[in-house]
Amino acid sequence: MKTISTAKSHGGIQGVYSHASIACNCDMTFAVFVPPQAAERPCPVLWYLSGLTCNHSNVMDKGEYRAAAAEHGIIIVCPDTSPRGDDVPDEADNWQFGQGAGFYLDATQEPFNKHYNMYSYITSELTIIIASKFNVDMSKQGIFGHSMGGHGALTIALKDPERFASVSAFAPIAEPSKADWSVGALEKYLGADQSKWRDYDTCMLLEDGHKLPEILVDQGASDDHLERLGPDVLKAACEKASVMLTHNMRDGYDHSYFFVSSFMASQIAWHAERLNKA
Amino acid sequence: MKTISTAKSHGGIQGVYSHASIACNCDMTFAVFVPPQAAERPCPVLWYLSGLTCNHSNVMDKGEYRAAAAEHGIIIVCPDTSPRGDDVPDEADNWQFGQGAGFYLDATQEPFNKHYNMYSYITSELTIIIASKFNVDMSKQGIFGHSMGGHGALTIALKDPERFASVSAFAPIAEPSKADWSVGALEKYLGADQSKWRDYDTCMLLEDGHKLPEILVDQGASDDHLERLGPDVLKAACEKASVMLTHNMRDGYDHSYFFVSSFMASQIAWHAERLNKA
Repeated sequence: MKTISTAKSHGGIQGVYSHASIACNCDMTFAVFVPPQAAERPCPVLWYLSGLTCNHSNVMDKGEYRAAAAEHGIIIVCPDTSPRGDDVPDEADNWQFGQGAGFYLDATQEPFNKHYNMYSYITSELTIIIASKFNVDMSKQGIFGHSMGGHGALTIALKDPERFASVSAFAPIAEPSKADWSVGALEKYLGADQSKWRDYDTCMLLEDGHKLPEILVDQGASDDHLERLGPDVLKAACEKASVMLTHNMRDGYDHSYFFVSSFMASQIAWHAERLNKA
Repeated sequence: MKTISTAKSHGGIQGVYSHASIACNCDMTFAVFVPPQAAERPCPVLWYLSGLTCNHSNVMDKGEYRAAAAEHGIIIVCPDTSPRGDDVPDEADNWQFGQGAGFYLDATQEPFNKHYNMYSYITSELTIIIASKFNVDMSKQGIFGHSMGGHGALTIALKDPERFASVSAFAPIAEPSKADWSVGALEKYLGADQSKWRDYDTCMLLEDGHKLPEILVDQGASDDHLERLGPDVLKAACEKASVMLTHNMRDGYDHSYFFVSSFMASQIAWHAERLNKA
């Protein structure tokens, strides 16, 4: 692991790091905020997964998570959203596929399966790095994310509910198998057989019996992407699966970081309450 | 005034606007955050001036001012740092002069005097726009800024102390007439006669009898630019002029927005206390 930069912020340290990833077969960059409490004791870790077009730095710059993380003593990990580099297959003009659009899955199709393995990268490879390099209490983990990253947070947690004491999302893509901005990517990464997509679709995982004790979602009511995000299908799927969903429709808010940052502190406080009990 | 964008954030509205500027002889863009309280009553206004290389958007994205501004009911105005456009003389490779480096002065030298009039732009032209287009209580104004913008805030307030009920800065350039990163710009904008520079130099304005009741400064102790910023000359100048200076040396902090955002809420609370009394 190479340190790209560190800066003191809100009493803690905001760092940016890179490493040669085996899962993604390229160098990967990620950001970690370590609160001041980590100097004294292992701290809970909260994974933040970003949305389409983002890398590690967007939420680091615009997410306003450090004040709340420092207050509650929580480490925040912000991975990239895809493999990167000249060797990584991409469609430069397509923001819904390729670099910046990894969809937190392990690709099965050539040539994408050589690099697009964000599911294994986050759940395994980066997990081991975080556990070994930072003063984390790995028995206290939460996960959240925005849009495509909300999809990532929910699907990762649904498949490993024991690992995460708290799961939330900002404007998550609830049913990527059916939404126009994700169907194309799922087909290229996973092939035409849609039964293979269920493993990376929150609504279908719920339908297939995966469960979580509770989920928190904030959603902007003026989000231009409401239809593609599917808040109503998420509500219906959670209800059918008897998963407790707290779904806050936020009047007037859009899909941007101006929305995400507005509810960052309250989501982190919600995670902190659960993580500190875990 | 043209609206470029608006987004709900922290209960208020973060907007970006542009207009044809007479003072700068070009189109100028600025950001304004209007807190929810402005729907009910005129709110105090706090001017934030940014540093070298920045435009209106850097602090809007990274400054983390909206939560505190919404809490205290304060309008935050974030102007650009210079005139902009293909017609505006510039030195593309010099980040300490030209576009992004207006130094909050009115240039007297050809060809810069046609556009580089940020002092008049902010203190007069943009002031009138803010007063007429937003629900502001112009009897309650404060000003602050970062680095070159700290210099701007202090010099503007020193020349018009009646206008500003509160004045603070993050890592301000205290004595631009003597610092290596500003001498070149002052000479080009104002000419070789250094007596003309005193009007745009905090330490010299203090020496020349300008006063403020009090100044708040936060300064990173690990700031790479400490010597050029001159916190010690600022302290000495304030002491000699009997200006009350609260100067917080912040252990471990650098010159970045990671530093600025860490003390944004406390500076805004400090302004709010004074503005709400004004």
